[in-house]
Amino acid sequence: MSIPAIILVQPQLGENIGKAARVMLNFGLDELRLVAPRDGWPNPAAGPAASGADGVIDRAVVFDDIADAVADLNRVYAATVRGRDMPKPVVTPQEAAAEMRAAIDAGQRVGILFGREKSGLSNEEVVFADTIWTVPVNAAFASLNLAQAVAIAAYEWHRGSGDKPAQWDDSPPAPKAELEGLIGHLEEELEAHNYFRPAERAPTLRRTLRNILEGGGFTAQQVQTLRGVVKALASPSRDRGE
Amino acid sequence: MSIPAIILVQPQLGENIGKAARVMLNFGLDELRLVAPRDGWPNPAAGPAASGADGVIDRAVVFDDIADAVADLNRVYAATVRGRDMPKPVVTPQEAAAEMRAAIDAGQRVGILFGREKSGLSNEEVVFADTIWTVPVNAAFASLNLAQAVAIAAYEWHRGSGDKPAQWDDSPPAPKAELEGLIGHLEEELEAHNYFRPAERAPTLRRTLRNILEGGGFTAQQVQTLRGVVKALASPSRDRGE
Repeated sequence: MSIPAIILVQPQLGENIGKAARVMLNFGLDELRLVAPRDGWPNPAAGPAASGADGVIDRAVVFDDIADAVADLNRVYAATVRGRDMPKPVVTPQEAAAEMRAAIDAGQRVGILFGREKSGLSNEEVVFADTIWTVPVNAAFASLNLAQAVAIAAYEWHRGSGDKPAQWDDSPPAPKAELEGLIGHLEEELEAHNYFRPAERAPTLRRTLRNILEGGGFTAQQVQTLRGVVKALASPSRDRGE
Repeated sequence: MSIPAIILVQPQLGENIGKAARVMLNFGLDELRLVAPRDGWPNPAAGPAASGADGVIDRAVVFDDIADAVADLNRVYAATVRGRDMPKPVVTPQEAAAEMRAAIDAGQRVGILFGREKSGLSNEEVVFADTIWTVPVNAAFASLNLAQAVAIAAYEWHRGSGDKPAQWDDSPPAPKAELEGLIGHLEEELEAHNYFRPAERAPTLRRTLRNILEGGGFTAQQVQTLRGVVKALASPSRDRGE
């Protein structure tokens, strides 16, 4: 059976990568993905901190960017404790564990993104996720250590193993790579149609579009349909006699 | 109101004491007790690892032995992942949190003992507890990092408190009339761009598009953005010199 992938985005310290690997294995998770780890990979500090979870470290896969790291996943969560003004559902670790189990039972692949130690995930990174994963904490002291956040995700995953699965739609969201294809296609055509003006608003417009498309829960077939729509709209119009 | 005390028995590394303090405060616990810390106290490695939870470190109290450390407590838990052949109840972190809350509500004082990093609590130490506190883990890789074990205890304490994560604006879906405006606009432009061909497939294509747009859960603002996208795509392209 598939399990959630733990995806560390630009982790800074090898020690934290090792500690995350250790606590993952404590709770039966062993699929670790690293996006552009600051000090490269392998990192000599990771192994000792993993305290025996060497298999998790050895099988960790490195990606250049988040899009690649989530390309094969159907559902992605973004771990954050800060409020984000984004139209995405927000779930607790407990709720996320139940959702992930139901998704996996339905044949989907899922993962959770965790940000760098100092600053977490940027808004540009959170948009890659369907759902915001957040731990209820003491608001006056909210900054969780990276490996501790992973610990709580892993603990809840394992704890919920006896919980009843929620019902799940049998049309799974498209793999992220297909959604990425749609986003790339749309942006290219919008670029050609002068949509991203003025230039200083372009990053916000791109993020807004990505949020809309990531949040739609579109199936692979729907993504294909939307590509057809973009292609048709961008083509010459008969009414204008082009 | 009283809260559970976290009692570290002969902790070896100052760094782990600091990390335990940090995650305690993340979840609203601030009473740390240390029984004969190996490297004495204060420990210069604890403060940096606490990452701002200085108050917990500063107020930590050192005891010579467990008996002294638990003298004022009514209920004591012993954290262990190994099976113990002892006539004591065994509870999960979740069950312990509920029990502790009930005990505290009844005016009792409670605490949890955590053993040294290398070997945990000895049987002679576990006897000081009323109840065994144990985290369900992967039996094949059961050794939890000290600060991670504290993290799970603190997380469960806080989780049971009924506190919710700060809720983001729910961003309700757009009124249907606005969605209808988008669908009408899109269909009109697609018509102009010869999308609905062959004619006998048009009803199916329209239904497919409606399913996609109704299912997206788009907010009013997102609907406005999508109208802008349709307008831009349907407009003359600069690349084609139209």
